[in-house]
Amino acid sequence: MSILIKNILAVLERGSDFHIEETSIYIENDRIVDIGNSDYNADCIIDGKNRLAMPGLINSHTHAYMSLFRNYADDLPFSQWLFDKILPLEDKLTGEDAYWGTMLGIMEMIGTGTTCFTDMYIFTNETSRAVDETGIRAFLSRGLVGSGDDEGGRRRINEAKEEIEQWKGNDRLNYIAAPHAPYTCDDKFLCNVIDFARDYNLGINIHLSESRNEIAEIYNKYKCTPTELMNKIGLFELNTLAAHCVYLSDSDIDILAEKKVNVISCPVSNLKLGNGIAPLAKLVDKGVNVCLGTDGAASNNTLNLFKELQFVTLLHKGIEEKADIVSASTGLRFASSNAARALSLEKETGKIDLGYKADLTILDIDKPQYYPRNNLISALAYSTSGDEVDTVIVDGKILMKNKEFLTIDTEKVKYHINRISKGLLN
Amino acid sequence: MSILIKNILAVLERGSDFHIEETSIYIENDRIVDIGNSDYNADCIIDGKNRLAMPGLINSHTHAYMSLFRNYADDLPFSQWLFDKILPLEDKLTGEDAYWGTMLGIMEMIGTGTTCFTDMYIFTNETSRAVDETGIRAFLSRGLVGSGDDEGGRRRINEAKEEIEQWKGNDRLNYIAAPHAPYTCDDKFLCNVIDFARDYNLGINIHLSESRNEIAEIYNKYKCTPTELMNKIGLFELNTLAAHCVYLSDSDIDILAEKKVNVISCPVSNLKLGNGIAPLAKLVDKGVNVCLGTDGAASNNTLNLFKELQFVTLLHKGIEEKADIVSASTGLRFASSNAARALSLEKETGKIDLGYKADLTILDIDKPQYYPRNNLISALAYSTSGDEVDTVIVDGKILMKNKEFLTIDTEKVKYHINRISKGLLN
Repeated sequence: MSILIKNILAVLERGSDFHIEETSIYIENDRIVDIGNSDYNADCIIDGKNRLAMPGLINSHTHAYMSLFRNYADDLPFSQWLFDKILPLEDKLTGEDAYWGTMLGIMEMIGTGTTCFTDMYIFTNETSRAVDETGIRAFLSRGLVGSGDDEGGRRRINEAKEEIEQWKGNDRLNYIAAPHAPYTCDDKFLCNVIDFARDYNLGINIHLSESRNEIAEIYNKYKCTPTELMNKIGLFELNTLAAHCVYLSDSDIDILAEKKVNVISCPVSNLKLGNGIAPLAKLVDKGVNVCLGTDGAASNNTLNLFKELQFVTLLHKGIEEKADIVSASTGLRFASSNAARALSLEKETGKIDLGYKADLTILDIDKPQYYPRNNLISALAYSTSGDEVDTVIVDGKILMKNKEFLTIDTEKVKYHINRISKGLLN
Repeated sequence: MSILIKNILAVLERGSDFHIEETSIYIENDRIVDIGNSDYNADCIIDGKNRLAMPGLINSHTHAYMSLFRNYADDLPFSQWLFDKILPLEDKLTGEDAYWGTMLGIMEMIGTGTTCFTDMYIFTNETSRAVDETGIRAFLSRGLVGSGDDEGGRRRINEAKEEIEQWKGNDRLNYIAAPHAPYTCDDKFLCNVIDFARDYNLGINIHLSESRNEIAEIYNKYKCTPTELMNKIGLFELNTLAAHCVYLSDSDIDILAEKKVNVISCPVSNLKLGNGIAPLAKLVDKGVNVCLGTDGAASNNTLNLFKELQFVTLLHKGIEEKADIVSASTGLRFASSNAARALSLEKETGKIDLGYKADLTILDIDKPQYYPRNNLISALAYSTSGDEVDTVIVDGKILMKNKEFLTIDTEKVKYHINRISKGLLN
């Protein structure tokens, strides 16, 4: 299979900055094999007129099938949201519900230009099945909670191992070990998870320092911050994706920088649940690899990374009263090349470049918000709603073309979502 | 002309809250004359399947033809943005440029569900012409700056008077007196503007307490806050729309509440220019009538009120660490019924109700972000990008139908925007 994207404006990353170039992109099988020449007999030709090609976005933290709970429990204090509303619904979910919820999540992500996502949840087998079928790229994890060597914790780790064995060999489907959070995994259990991750050569996906409650709870128990605790236990010796990181001391930030921990900022979720605002400018200043995540749709309420990009680039300017921080290109890197680096895929995806995987998002920029065409990198951060996404390619396969989903029966997904939603709320 | 919108989910405001009802809406000439019955032979029938009808949104503060400067000067400190980049371009603009820039702005506003906007800028005649032709509703103002009885100030007030005379009699086209800001109008000139507003029975549109610099400058000159100064001068005796209001003391908030000043919050612009964050929760608590504005596209960079609605409902939850403040319905009122009240149109528009103007926005909700269909008011605030807007009706006339603009030659607008933009930057 070969694809030629002809005469298109493309977002290229050369050195440390983006620039826009009118060019052609030629794809063979799963790779970009030429940028510049258009003299190819491709199986499929995409006309680049009024289109902008950019690296496929990477959603570095989500819980895809939480899309089932979208707009169900909003404007509520955190504990009421979680304990009274979300957890009781989660308890009712079957594996099949999780499958359809993931399909909805993937549909929304592809539709808004995401080509890869990192997920943590329970029915990982069902999430894997949806990833396999839809053609998106993913790093999946079974959320692990446990205390010491308790049976529940051991069972969860064993389930994760079985899932990894079952789905081995799918290049788009990767695994990551996910101790849920410092307040749901005690130190002994965290060590068990570290052993599991080492045995299977996995990275780590964890929620870290998301709320004031977490800080207080960990301090009461261990007399240190969650970041200090994770460092002491040795978690950061493994490649770690730490989601949220809202409450960090200056010395926490130094630890994260020194240990090359990848911080996944989820600004919309942190705002919506009233958790607060991460010290992003400081993290960036200290050279921490920052990435972007939507979190689940119950606390966002979309999986649209362009919305997240708007928030992350605008929010900190206001908080710090500095208009020149977290620039459009900085934000765009959070959602592309930084995210690829966090997944150790910096030579594989997150950029439009020769030899890279063909993970691309193409926008229709013939819209009022794209006139006049001044700085198009600015436009991606400040003027793009996500609905401009027109065509999405992952691993050299077209998943959406001119807004038509090629690997998802969207009517079937919507039918099942309505059915499941009615059942859950009755 | 009559329109029947058949079997549609509609956002109705009953008492102090919104609710959603499946119903039919019948429009004759410029008014909603029935809600509930669908037994009409209408000139035009709109099928409500998978659609949501809501009050047309009201953008309470913008500078429409700043859309010409979109994505031209981003990620810059405020003074560099304004003095080095924006003002030199403004100086080059002709009236014709302003006309096409306004057309682009109106195109974007209609396309994202706005049916009425309040504007302040220079070439008000050209803005009026664009409003007249496109069919949108507007409150326009010539931005007035001046010092004492200086010639420039007098000339600007006279121009405003001429414009009002010229466009008299167009029901959709209203005027408002606009002293630009406390730091660009001295106290004597402000009194002249108040006289002008009284003579012509106009409300007031002003920028107030937007930046720390403004607070310092006014304090140095008058030994009080901008709000105290405006109150002392008597500005608030007229119906006032005060945009931004980022820096307010508790006693300023009491004054705004007591004088029934309408506060137009522009969260995205305040963030983007590094100005800060308005004390919105306090304003709402004190009963101030809060409305929503995008500001100009040079500091946003869109005129999309759904984006603004996301920011206003999410931002303050994070700042105040309270998930239950500035709810979805509170935010929606900022952009609809509160805005109508600010314009003294609370019996005319801002709601879907019997006898009200037919100013309606219809969304296509057959999109992933609208599944499952839980709380649709939440969906409007937290899941809507603006591109769901499908059909827009103003004053009983359809301005956009199934995404096709009926009163704007979009290709012509885009052609002229490209032409003007090239000329400006050379």
